[in-house]
Amino acid sequence: VDHSFQRSDVITFLTDFGTGGTYVAACEAVLARLAPAYRVLHLSHEVALGDIDWGAILLERVAPLCPPCLHLAVVDPGVGTDRRPLALLSGRGDILVGPDNGLLAPAADALGGVAETWLLEPAKIRAEAGLSTEPLSATFHGRDVFAPAAALLATGLPAARLATPADADALVRRLRPSSQDTAEGLVATVIEVDRFGNIGLSADFAEHPQAVPSVTIEVVEEHLPIWKARVVQTFGCLNPGELGVYCDSWGKIALALNGASAAELLAVGRGAKIRISPREDA
Amino acid sequence: VDHSFQRSDVITFLTDFGTGGTYVAACEAVLARLAPAYRVLHLSHEVALGDIDWGAILLERVAPLCPPCLHLAVVDPGVGTDRRPLALLSGRGDILVGPDNGLLAPAADALGGVAETWLLEPAKIRAEAGLSTEPLSATFHGRDVFAPAAALLATGLPAARLATPADADALVRRLRPSSQDTAEGLVATVIEVDRFGNIGLSADFAEHPQAVPSVTIEVVEEHLPIWKARVVQTFGCLNPGELGVYCDSWGKIALALNGASAAELLAVGRGAKIRISPREDA
Amino acid sequence: VDHSFQRSDVITFLTDFGTGGTYVAACEAVLARLAPAYRVLHLSHEVALGDIDWGAILLERVAPLCPPCLHLAVVDPGVGTDRRPLALLSGRGDILVGPDNGLLAPAADALGGVAETWLLEPAKIRAEAGLSTEPLSATFHGRDVFAPAAALLATGLPAARLATPADADALVRRLRPSSQDTAEGLVATVIEVDRFGNIGLSADFAEHPQAVPSVTIEVVEEHLPIWKARVVQTFGCLNPGELGVYCDSWGKIALALNGASAAELLAVGRGAKIRISPREDA
Repeated sequence: VDHSFQRSDVITFLTDFGTGGTYVAACEAVLARLAPAYRVLHLSHEVALGDIDWGAILLERVAPLCPPCLHLAVVDPGVGTDRRPLALLSGRGDILVGPDNGLLAPAADALGGVAETWLLEPAKIRAEAGLSTEPLSATFHGRDVFAPAAALLATGLPAARLATPADADALVRRLRPSSQDTAEGLVATVIEVDRFGNIGLSADFAEHPQAVPSVTIEVVEEHLPIWKARVVQTFGCLNPGELGVYCDSWGKIALALNGASAAELLAVGRGAKIRISPREDA
Repeated sequence: VDHSFQRSDVITFLTDFGTGGTYVAACEAVLARLAPAYRVLHLSHEVALGDIDWGAILLERVAPLCPPCLHLAVVDPGVGTDRRPLALLSGRGDILVGPDNGLLAPAADALGGVAETWLLEPAKIRAEAGLSTEPLSATFHGRDVFAPAAALLATGLPAARLATPADADALVRRLRPSSQDTAEGLVATVIEVDRFGNIGLSADFAEHPQAVPSVTIEVVEEHLPIWKARVVQTFGCLNPGELGVYCDSWGKIALALNGASAAELLAVGRGAKIRISPREDA
Repeated sequence: VDHSFQRSDVITFLTDFGTGGTYVAACEAVLARLAPAYRVLHLSHEVALGDIDWGAILLERVAPLCPPCLHLAVVDPGVGTDRRPLALLSGRGDILVGPDNGLLAPAADALGGVAETWLLEPAKIRAEAGLSTEPLSATFHGRDVFAPAAALLATGLPAARLATPADADALVRRLRPSSQDTAEGLVATVIEVDRFGNIGLSADFAEHPQAVPSVTIEVVEEHLPIWKARVVQTFGCLNPGELGVYCDSWGKIALALNGASAAELLAVGRGAKIRISPREDA
């Protein structure tokens, strides 16, 4: 980890802990104690339970908008097992701390690639953090391993003091949903349903220019109606009840209604497959 | 926008984005990058989807409690259409940034009135923010227009560098629910249902002193029972199951139960009409 | 309150207000105005409505992880009645501000004990905060009494300027659920259900070493099945659908499934009683 580089005084924090309990507060307390001059930018704590893939997408999307800084991310269904605790240095100079389960790698790629890979050593972290006399829990490494490591690395402790270098090739990477151009149209996977019920797909809008002004939408392998949809710029262009296809703010092909939930209309969530075809009669 | 005035290093932030997705985090990332010495005071991100009126009330209530600062508010169902992006300077010295859809004006009024009105120019904002080479989305002006403008204005960029002056008379203002004194009693609109189920009405308590110790409560145009209610100081004065009328913390006539939800009992939400009448037999 | 001691620039904030309304934002606005150099660490605002006991547990668990600082906690169903507003100085040097209803005392105990007890005087607080001309609400002492007091005390105003000393013995303390070793096994109370559905009990794991590798679990006084459970280190040790007993991150005996909700399986919430017995055939 490069220490000549000046990172921001921000620590971003992403989990699936929810904000109703003790977990987020406990981690932030540790950060406030060990990195008192740093402030926490909460990305989200409402990642669906154990949904590493959505956590990875959220981090990959938002981290590049941040100033170079430390990113702490804990979506960790394998806590306490032999999955490895990790710190990555990105090409842009960010540090990413979290479990080696696929959560961090896409963000590191979006931040200029994985420059250094470090395997965190809980015993060293806890010694450096002055926590050696307290028990290391088996189920809350956010508080006991990742937050202390994040605070120590953010404030400039050399990575070698609490981790051993590893090979970037050994990083856990998860398969990411792609899209297929078929004879019947483009088939893509739902990767996001936002609070408004807008549906983000796994296909880049720019790579699938819609030659026709309208398309049909079908949920693959469900006995549901085929929907007509119009390709539009934004929600406000749609008539009430009319389904629209648009380029969302992350460049993906997306589906929306105006003032209502497309996800509810189509009854889909993350992982569903959608087919988009040009309309014959358009 | 007055630059001799010393505003606080706070940027308040209000949206209907929810905290489960990428939108709040993306905006705060932009603020952290462009205004690194400023901190974000999250007012709420749980405004009901597109509920400009509640967003406006929340901002109008809380902004005067803040030190003079920049207020960023994005409840923006018309994003990407021809609704105008706005910056207002308040009489007290606050800057308010958001869409020109009625969201900002009541808060500006509560902060000493609208002193200056500026129409934001996305191209100028993005040039000043160093974002000219990145695409401007049609659906996420929070990240692409409003947050950069907020960061630049908060940190002292003259408004004329990213906006053109406009006439305050041209501001969009939304009709606000009032209350009517009728022969059958006071008819007012539900403007707030809080987490406790307390019901805030559109009538000021001080302007409708309740001469009698108890009243009847009726949901207008619903075939529901008429409720007896007692005028009290606070929740703890009420017996179990007893409906109370009180002066809420914003000076409004409000209805509550002790330890239960008045909104559930009366089955009302924002927009419902309530009639309050003196009890004949009181 | 000791002023030679250097507290952190953190104000922690815990309520049952939720983040959808005006209440949390209004209090944080007051803090930002009166203690502009301090930052707010939000512990949680999703304490169940009026659940003083859970608020007390959350504060007791997280406050010791924080640097010595001011803790503002408002779970206050008795607001506006004669319950007393309180400031405590802990043995470690923290200040705790909130209602005298049992919310603060367990945390003070965990922070080195109650060193000083002060009864806040709203009129003095409001005079010191420059709020004398504004009305004191009967239902929102978070904004009108506790947040101003917290800001003033955090920034170094002597407690005697806004409070009178009291006897620590007079503090309201609530009965805390214990556990009983019976002939049929250990009976303990559910004190926590986390977002993952893990069930935390009122018994310390270390004090009840499980001699056998597996136990039976029964919800007391419910006509429900008796569950077999295995004593494990962490969630990942469990097979799908298998109930596990483990030492949670706060040292309590806890129940979990791997990737599913134990609380849903057992249909229990806070307050339920659970019996844990060694398995005869184990």
